Amino acid sequence: MTRIELAKRGIITDEVKEVATEEGLTPEDLSKNIAEGKAVITRNILRNIKPLGIGKGLRTKINANIGTSKDKTDIEEELEKLDIAVRYGADAVMDLSTGGPLKQMRQAIIKHSPVSVGTVPIYEVAVRAIEKYGSIVKMTVDDIFNVIEEHAQDGVDFITVHCGVTMKIVEMLKSGERVLPIVSRGGSILADWICHNGKENPLYEHFDRLIEIAKKYDLTLSLGDGLRPGCLKDATDKFQLLELITIGKLKDIAVSEGVQCLIEGPGHLPINHIETNIKLQKSICKEAPFYVLGPLVTDCAMGYDHIAAAIGGAWAGYFGADFLCYVTPSEHIRLPDKNDVKEGVIASKIAAHAADIAKGYYKAWERDNRMAQARRNFEWQEQITLSFDPEKVLSMRAERPPVEDERVCSMCGEFCAIKISRKAVEE
Amino acid sequence: MTRIELAKRGIITDEVKEVATEEGLTPEDLSKNIAEGKAVITRNILRNIKPLGIGKGLRTKINANIGTSKDKTDIEEELEKLDIAVRYGADAVMDLSTGGPLKQMRQAIIKHSPVSVGTVPIYEVAVRAIEKYGSIVKMTVDDIFNVIEEHAQDGVDFITVHCGVTMKIVEMLKSGERVLPIVSRGGSILADWICHNGKENPLYEHFDRLIEIAKKYDLTLSLGDGLRPGCLKDATDKFQLLELITIGKLKDIAVSEGVQCLIEGPGHLPINHIETNIKLQKSICKEAPFYVLGPLVTDCAMGYDHIAAAIGGAWAGYFGADFLCYVTPSEHIRLPDKNDVKEGVIASKIAAHAADIAKGYYKAWERDNRMAQARRNFEWQEQITLSFDPEKVLSMRAERPPVEDERVCSMCGEFCAIKISRKAVEE
Repeated sequence: MTRIELAKRGIITDEVKEVATEEGLTPEDLSKNIAEGKAVITRNILRNIKPLGIGKGLRTKINANIGTSKDKTDIEEELEKLDIAVRYGADAVMDLSTGGPLKQMRQAIIKHSPVSVGTVPIYEVAVRAIEKYGSIVKMTVDDIFNVIEEHAQDGVDFITVHCGVTMKIVEMLKSGERVLPIVSRGGSILADWICHNGKENPLYEHFDRLIEIAKKYDLTLSLGDGLRPGCLKDATDKFQLLELITIGKLKDIAVSEGVQCLIEGPGHLPINHIETNIKLQKSICKEAPFYVLGPLVTDCAMGYDHIAAAIGGAWAGYFGADFLCYVTPSEHIRLPDKNDVKEGVIASKIAAHAADIAKGYYKAWERDNRMAQARRNFEWQEQITLSFDPEKVLSMRAERPPVEDERVCSMCGEFCAIKISRKAVEE
Repeated sequence: MTRIELAKRGIITDEVKEVATEEGLTPEDLSKNIAEGKAVITRNILRNIKPLGIGKGLRTKINANIGTSKDKTDIEEELEKLDIAVRYGADAVMDLSTGGPLKQMRQAIIKHSPVSVGTVPIYEVAVRAIEKYGSIVKMTVDDIFNVIEEHAQDGVDFITVHCGVTMKIVEMLKSGERVLPIVSRGGSILADWICHNGKENPLYEHFDRLIEIAKKYDLTLSLGDGLRPGCLKDATDKFQLLELITIGKLKDIAVSEGVQCLIEGPGHLPINHIETNIKLQKSICKEAPFYVLGPLVTDCAMGYDHIAAAIGGAWAGYFGADFLCYVTPSEHIRLPDKNDVKEGVIASKIAAHAADIAKGYYKAWERDNRMAQARRNFEWQEQITLSFDPEKVLSMRAERPPVEDERVCSMCGEFCAIKISRKAVEE
């Protein structure tokens, strides 16, 4: 039986107890949320990692994308990215490789990763189709489901499937109303296939085959947003909403069949669209866990898109997004390197933490309250430990240490406001 | 006559026309906003820089703090920080120096700065008091106003004055209800003076002397928030609100006397407090321009406080804050260096731009729409030009260039979604 099937029968597993205990809600509540498709635990039955809970009542989680492209393939570097992502707090990683030996890469990442691993199988289908047939449009329906099954067999915990990129929406896109028709790689591959073959998206048409594979491995389906807006001008448009309605329906089918789902969301959104987007998703998809990419609050932050994504992600989390996909400084420019991964994870972690604070999540408050006390008491070691990147804080402080008084810092020196005001009002 | 006096008489100056034209509102509207204290133009009558408009109907502006502390004094470095701040888009800089030859530093910064310069004169009063009397609590009322007059004579465009740190609030702080009583340097200096001397804050008691100096130079008063929360736990508490009420009253007096004011605000605020804070300020201070520091949405982002501030600042701007004071990665750790200034300015600029986008400011949208078109058309030079740090984008792209097709990037390579989807739906 899958997690949903167990939960529907009121059976509370050790896994549910483990996640619930760590997150500070009751196993009964978590189990109920899983049964209703409002929370998921992403772990392939073949895997022996810490289970990851995402959704209602749970801390905001973050995902780091790693993986090669044809223009840059290096397994060792990707494994180092994995280590960095986990070290700085990624709750999950996705292997988005499209270059080099894909299966070997995936297996290495799964073997090394202590956290949930997600993939986008259509990438590998496309790579193989080019190798085998010379073109992505020649991939067959069986090619698609064979690769998905392979990923599940390899132990992948969740997969992105762009089931909502239907013939109808792709046909509508031809009107030219969008500045950027599709900015999702998987979505564009499927759109190309649909247009060329004049057939329906196999992931939509044969959704039952997806359900069958997912049930076997208790694989979580992340229903991808192939139509997510790729610029602010395209935000919250009909294409995006029609896809959301489609994947909301598929989510209901999956949950009724005992398969866990995440719903993926934008993308590029101006600040004033964020609350609406989260509430729409929560309403249309009946509180299913929402997994957002960014959202990026401007199109112009190249080199600093991790910051644009942190601005959007923190607020998306506050309004109810459950899972933030990080964005690195190299977004829109090139494949991320190790430092980009670090910067991206930390920015996303800050966003998720700020969201949890605003939602009143007690463990997040505990950390900030400890930081405030440490600041009050000039306890530098404690402050460093509580920060998101202790080594950076330590080395920054060492670069320009306080000269006269170890308690303060070189920003204010003798005019440390905490020191002066505590003396003034406490003595 | 001061700007407010002219505006009250319906006289529209060239300066008002210049600012209004650039910002895309009518000179009449801007003039009305200035007359009512809802917008300011910060420029000392002795200065010949581009006038800076802040407030209702205007683009969100950003400020970069520079300046030495006793633990690190180097005029050349501060001038380089000034250049960097201006280069990456700071609309104003504040010289917060507390170490080295303060007057020389200030004069050099004013001479070199093409943008408005602000200061916090009480710092220099404190430094001189230590030199002259051996203690900050021995500074006299005349010492305070003499330094303020000197700053105005040197050409400073706006000054922070912590007029709202009254005896009554300082007395209340002794209850120990706050984790961090005061985190404002100026506020703590005044609190110390008040407690030691048992006298009222001279900036409050002799507010008329401040008005007199400000009128002479058309100096803008930035009514400081000495009681801003220094941690999330202290956010939006009675101390902060009582101070806001006090400075709101003083603002009314100043405006009626023809003196322009900014209202300073927090500080450390959880995301769910931001909208309330902005709306409270706008209501209590009758739409006076709001100048916020951050707000930082978590206490724990040491080393990455520019990101925590961008998250808060973007949303504060969206809800109505007019002027964002940047926060650098070195906040809470040490005096910023040149790179910190750059990182801080860019993060703050992204936040201000995202706020302007969300508020519907047409020039902000124009930039993003051009970026989206450039992305659609694979115009890399245009994308680089439109970014906030063209050199960084250029060098990042060069580090991992696309191998086969110059139109794409090494993130997706041949699987560029824009390329594939445009082919699919346009051909």
